[in-house]
Amino acid sequence: MTQTQPGSLVQADGAARTRTYSWADPSATLAALAGLSGIELLGAIGRGELPPPPVMRTLGIEALDVGDGWIRFGLVPQEMHYNPLGTVHGGVLATLLDSATGCAVHSVLPAGVGYTSMDLTTKYLRPVTAATGKVIATGTVLARGSRTALAEAKLTDSRDRLLAHATSSCLIFSLEQA
Amino acid sequence: MTQTQPGSLVQADGAARTRTYSWADPSATLAALAGLSGIELLGAIGRGELPPPPVMRTLGIEALDVGDGWIRFGLVPQEMHYNPLGTVHGGVLATLLDSATGCAVHSVLPAGVGYTSMDLTTKYLRPVTAATGKVIATGTVLARGSRTALAEAKLTDSRDRLLAHATSSCLIFSLEQA
Amino acid sequence: MTQTQPGSLVQADGAARTRTYSWADPSATLAALAGLSGIELLGAIGRGELPPPPVMRTLGIEALDVGDGWIRFGLVPQEMHYNPLGTVHGGVLATLLDSATGCAVHSVLPAGVGYTSMDLTTKYLRPVTAATGKVIATGTVLARGSRTALAEAKLTDSRDRLLAHATSSCLIFSLEQA
Amino acid sequence: MTQTQPGSLVQADGAARTRTYSWADPSATLAALAGLSGIELLGAIGRGELPPPPVMRTLGIEALDVGDGWIRFGLVPQEMHYNPLGTVHGGVLATLLDSATGCAVHSVLPAGVGYTSMDLTTKYLRPVTAATGKVIATGTVLARGSRTALAEAKLTDSRDRLLAHATSSCLIFSLEQA
Repeated sequence: MTQTQPGSLVQADGAARTRTYSWADPSATLAALAGLSGIELLGAIGRGELPPPPVMRTLGIEALDVGDGWIRFGLVPQEMHYNPLGTVHGGVLATLLDSATGCAVHSVLPAGVGYTSMDLTTKYLRPVTAATGKVIATGTVLARGSRTALAEAKLTDSRDRLLAHATSSCLIFSLEQA
Repeated sequence: MTQTQPGSLVQADGAARTRTYSWADPSATLAALAGLSGIELLGAIGRGELPPPPVMRTLGIEALDVGDGWIRFGLVPQEMHYNPLGTVHGGVLATLLDSATGCAVHSVLPAGVGYTSMDLTTKYLRPVTAATGKVIATGTVLARGSRTALAEAKLTDSRDRLLAHATSSCLIFSLEQA
Repeated sequence: MTQTQPGSLVQADGAARTRTYSWADPSATLAALAGLSGIELLGAIGRGELPPPPVMRTLGIEALDVGDGWIRFGLVPQEMHYNPLGTVHGGVLATLLDSATGCAVHSVLPAGVGYTSMDLTTKYLRPVTAATGKVIATGTVLARGSRTALAEAKLTDSRDRLLAHATSSCLIFSLEQA
Repeated sequence: MTQTQPGSLVQADGAARTRTYSWADPSATLAALAGLSGIELLGAIGRGELPPPPVMRTLGIEALDVGDGWIRFGLVPQEMHYNPLGTVHGGVLATLLDSATGCAVHSVLPAGVGYTSMDLTTKYLRPVTAATGKVIATGTVLARGSRTALAEAKLTDSRDRLLAHATSSCLIFSLEQA
């Protein structure tokens, strides 16, 4: 893969940036998954009692707070998130929004009930750059049925302007059946 | 941000993984953006003549090949991409698919014409884990109008099974007007 | 087209229903389009000063009320709306929701500015039948930019349960340029 | 409802059009639903052995042909389909596309297995008017899992230009459980 070839990278422009980061073995969180309700698991991650999932370390996403049917994540946009157009890649914003919709659904599920995201529809409204400053993704459950749930998420800046919006449907199922 | 606190991370489970990677100053690619057609720019990135955008290094996305109206990206799923459920986070797949749809549109644009993604609708069909092996996102332009373009992308594994699907609409505009 | 062959229809089951309805020549409304702001046009339709668009008569959609950035439409579900599964066809609900998102956007546009729907993402949450009773689609503008706007719509029943949800992006343009 | 007040309609512009059409009691088709595979049911409707669903008569949608995993519907755009902008309402196109995606999924289901559309994401690419002539919606199954299926549909004109595109996810379930 490309990131293992720093030589060619340096050749290309001579101004490489290097980042080192860490994450925890995710097996502890995974082992706790079936025995905790969603809000218990998400709260434990938020309080640092369980390690956050690796992707949050990779992208620098921060769990802020969680309640019954809602959750908030934060991100400080940085160069490491940039696409070729010099803005934060839409997929990074989609990751924030997908986390917000999925975990909002998770927050209303009891222990022993799992979910999986079926889709994510993201609308990009304003470009996000390092100059934007910290952005917040707030996920909210719109409807919970027996087999599916619908959530939305809004991405806002510090002036509360809407930067992006998403909806997502999740399948809900018993972890014993799955 | 959380990834700057390795101490609490180690406390939480005692089994931290560390990753170091590099990317290039994106200003060289950005400076070339207006003067090259999309396929010229994407080809130059693919051949290593221009550095890939930072987000590709951050997530380990690889540019494979590009043609008139299509492009392919690859990713080897790893633990660093995982969500709390022990699978690759949907946002990482959305990043691959968004790159594929956006760059497929870019591939048909002449120099001096820019684009921006308005939306991304992703459908997740199968879970992706490290056991899946390398996945390929193929983006294709479905329609190009004067003000907008529509592209789709398919994410497949080595057995050509469809793992995820996306469509995206892009706004097209003159870079002088923008 | 099939509806011009009542003979074969009667043969198939011997219990045909017949409906007769009317609509007005839409040219009067169309002529007024460029000279009125969106809220003026939608208000004139709501007050019966301008005829509603034909599709509203065809499907029995009723304009309820409109304000700055929002609008409400009503529908009484009937057998004429049914799909082969014995429920109101999702496309009929999509028509209500598309009207609500599009006209909510129109309500914030001044005279001389047009719009066109680029997309509609509809989520179906509960089946709708004649037994559901009157349903209401409420459209709301979420964001208005210079070139695009985003709106959402919620379809609810008399108990205010969410039956369906939609988001839509619209292109905004000067009617002189178009 | 508005269409029962032809008087005010005539007052508004003095040039009312009147349409009369018929449909069959849908209970015969509904009764056959559980005992036939999807392709058997859709074929019987296409051959006129079972009546088409009421909404197809209401909007003038015609079932053209069906195979294993695909189906085609036709529509001749008319004034009765128009929105306030003088084009076919996006919801009418969504109805065609929703029929195409849903029935494509139905075509691969055996007797005793039901489905329901969870969503429909429609992209509108070109305006459709009476001058467009007959349009064709072709639905195709992209993926079929045990609990869900994904289908896409393309709306084209006689020159095979893409007018609109849609994807839809369906839930699949045993009719006994439902």
